[in-house]
Amino acid sequence: MYRPEIKLVDCTIRDGGLMNDSQFPLETVRTVFRAVCDAGVDYVELGYRNSKEMFDPEQYGPWRFCDEDQLRRAVDGIDPGETKIAIMQDAHKAEAADILPCDESVVDLIRIATYVKDVDKAIRLANNATDKGYECTVNIMAISHEGPPFLDEALQQIEEETKALAVYIVDSFGALYSEQVHYLVERYRMYVKTKEIGGHFHNAQQLAFANTIESIIRGANYVDGTLMGLGRGSGNCPLELLLGFLKNPKFELRPALEGIQKVILPLKKELAWGYHLPYMVSGMLDQHPREAIAWMDGDQREDLVGFYHRVTEEYGE
Amino acid sequence: MYRPEIKLVDCTIRDGGLMNDSQFPLETVRTVFRAVCDAGVDYVELGYRNSKEMFDPEQYGPWRFCDEDQLRRAVDGIDPGETKIAIMQDAHKAEAADILPCDESVVDLIRIATYVKDVDKAIRLANNATDKGYECTVNIMAISHEGPPFLDEALQQIEEETKALAVYIVDSFGALYSEQVHYLVERYRMYVKTKEIGGHFHNAQQLAFANTIESIIRGANYVDGTLMGLGRGSGNCPLELLLGFLKNPKFELRPALEGIQKVILPLKKELAWGYHLPYMVSGMLDQHPREAIAWMDGDQREDLVGFYHRVTEEYGE
Repeated sequence: MYRPEIKLVDCTIRDGGLMNDSQFPLETVRTVFRAVCDAGVDYVELGYRNSKEMFDPEQYGPWRFCDEDQLRRAVDGIDPGETKIAIMQDAHKAEAADILPCDESVVDLIRIATYVKDVDKAIRLANNATDKGYECTVNIMAISHEGPPFLDEALQQIEEETKALAVYIVDSFGALYSEQVHYLVERYRMYVKTKEIGGHFHNAQQLAFANTIESIIRGANYVDGTLMGLGRGSGNCPLELLLGFLKNPKFELRPALEGIQKVILPLKKELAWGYHLPYMVSGMLDQHPREAIAWMDGDQREDLVGFYHRVTEEYGE
Repeated sequence: MYRPEIKLVDCTIRDGGLMNDSQFPLETVRTVFRAVCDAGVDYVELGYRNSKEMFDPEQYGPWRFCDEDQLRRAVDGIDPGETKIAIMQDAHKAEAADILPCDESVVDLIRIATYVKDVDKAIRLANNATDKGYECTVNIMAISHEGPPFLDEALQQIEEETKALAVYIVDSFGALYSEQVHYLVERYRMYVKTKEIGGHFHNAQQLAFANTIESIIRGANYVDGTLMGLGRGSGNCPLELLLGFLKNPKFELRPALEGIQKVILPLKKELAWGYHLPYMVSGMLDQHPREAIAWMDGDQREDLVGFYHRVTEEYGE
C-alpha cells in the first residue's frame, strides 16, 4: 500500500554540505547521485545556488554554488531514470540573476529556504524560478520558533503569490514532537489550499523519521531524507528508512545501501553528524545547533555536563 | 504537564549486558546506578537473575545472575532516593528458587521476560515473585512476531492468573511503526483491565523514542529507556530523551548526562550499539538482530550490500 502522490527528495549533498562547507569531491557527488537515481527517488538535491558575494568561494566548495558546468560534471553519463535534479537557494543569501532559463539547465526543481521574516525575498526568488520554467518549493526554516500571526500571514502569501508545488515545514533544530508536527500540518492546511505540504526534519532527538511519518499520516506529500541521515548536526531523516517505509514499488533499498557503503561510511570517520549528546541537548532546548557543532569540533566534545551548563546558564526572565 | 502514573524504568545494565555478556565492571554499574537514581527515575534494572545451569558463569559476567551480595556491592553507600531496584528473569532460562523472600533482598521489582509460547512458565515465575513479596511485570518479547489468537490468550491468562503491575509490549526487533504500537496498546487493553501496559522498544529504525511516545499517548504507563540507548544491537530508547519529554518535575537531565559522560561514552568505543545499517536492515525485515550483531563483529562489517544479500537471499515461499 502506498500513496503515489508522495514525492521523496534526497538532500544528502545539500544538507550534508552544512557539515563540510560543501566541499565534497566530485566523485562523492557522482556516487550519491547514482545511488539515489538507482533507488528510484523522485528528486536529488545537489547543493545550493547561493551568492558568491555572500559565501567566499575560497572557503566554500562548489556545491554551495552549483555552477551549471559543475552540475553537468556531477551527472554526466549517469542515467537518472525518472529522478529530477534540485538545487536550493537561501532567500536571504541568493540572487535571482544566478538562475538560468530552465531549458539551459540540468536543474528541474529550485527549493527556496526561508525564515518567516524573509518570506517576501523567498516569494521573489520562487517567482523568478517558476517564471524561468522550473518547479519550485518554499521551505520555511526554524519552524519551531514560528507561529501565528506571522507564520499564517507567510503561508497565505505563499499560497496566493507563488506557483510553488509545495510549502515545507522545516524543523531546523530537531525540536518538534509528533503532536507539534500534527498541529503544523493542520495549520499549514488552513492556508495552503492549492499546493502540497512538505516535511524536512532534523534528528537531534531521534525523531526525524518518526516526524516524517507523522507528517505523511497528516497529509504531507513532499518528504526529505539523506543517505544515513548525513546533514547538519544530528543530521536528517535517513533516506534508507523512508525507502523501507514507503511501499512505492519503484523504490529500491539496495542502491542506497551501496552508496552508503561507498561514500557515506568513509565520511562518517571525518564528520560528526548523528546522535551526539550536544546536538540532543540543543534539540531538546529548541536551540540552533551551531553551539553544539562548535562544541563537537573542540577537544572538550565529551564534556556533556559542561555543554549543558553552557547552553542553560543564561536562562532567566 | 505530566502524567504522574507514568513509571520510568532504566535498563542500561540489563539490556546493555546483551552486548558484552553482562561483563560490566562493578564501578560502571555503580556509576549508572547513581546517575539513574539522581535523575529521579522510578526503577533501575541491574541485570538478569538467570540460571547458572543455562548460562555459564565462566562466560557470563555477574549481571547475568545478580547474586544478592553482588547487588549489595553495586548499591552500597549510594542514596537511591525514591528509585527502586529491578532485576529480570527470562521465563525459559530462570529458576523460581533463585528468588529470596523480598525482605531479604535489595530488589523491589522482578520483571519476567517471555515469549508468548512460554507464558505459562512466565506466570509461574511472576507468581513466585509476587508470593515472595516483590512487585512484578510480565514483558512479552518479540511482539512483532505475535498476534491473535495466541497473544490474546496469553494476555487473558496474565490478566487473570497473575498480580503483575504491568504487561509489556517488547519490540525486540525494532520492527514496529507507530500505527502498530497504537494497535498493540489497544489490543492489550482489550484483555488487560486491572494492570498497566508497558512499552520497551528497540531502535533499529530509529523509532524507539517515537514508539515510546506513541505508547504513552495511547495509555502505556510503564516505559523503558537506557543511557544513550545502550542495548542489544541498535539499542533502546535513550533515557535522556525520555527525561526531556516527560515533564515530571522530579526528573533531572544533568545526572544522566554525567553518567553518560563517565561510563557510556567510553563504552561506545568498545561496543557497537546504535544506528548501524545491518541492524537497520534486520529491523526493517522484522528479523532477530543476531545475524546483524555477528556481522558487526566481523571484519566485513561495512559490507552493507553483502549483509543485505545474505539476509534476503532465502526469501521465497
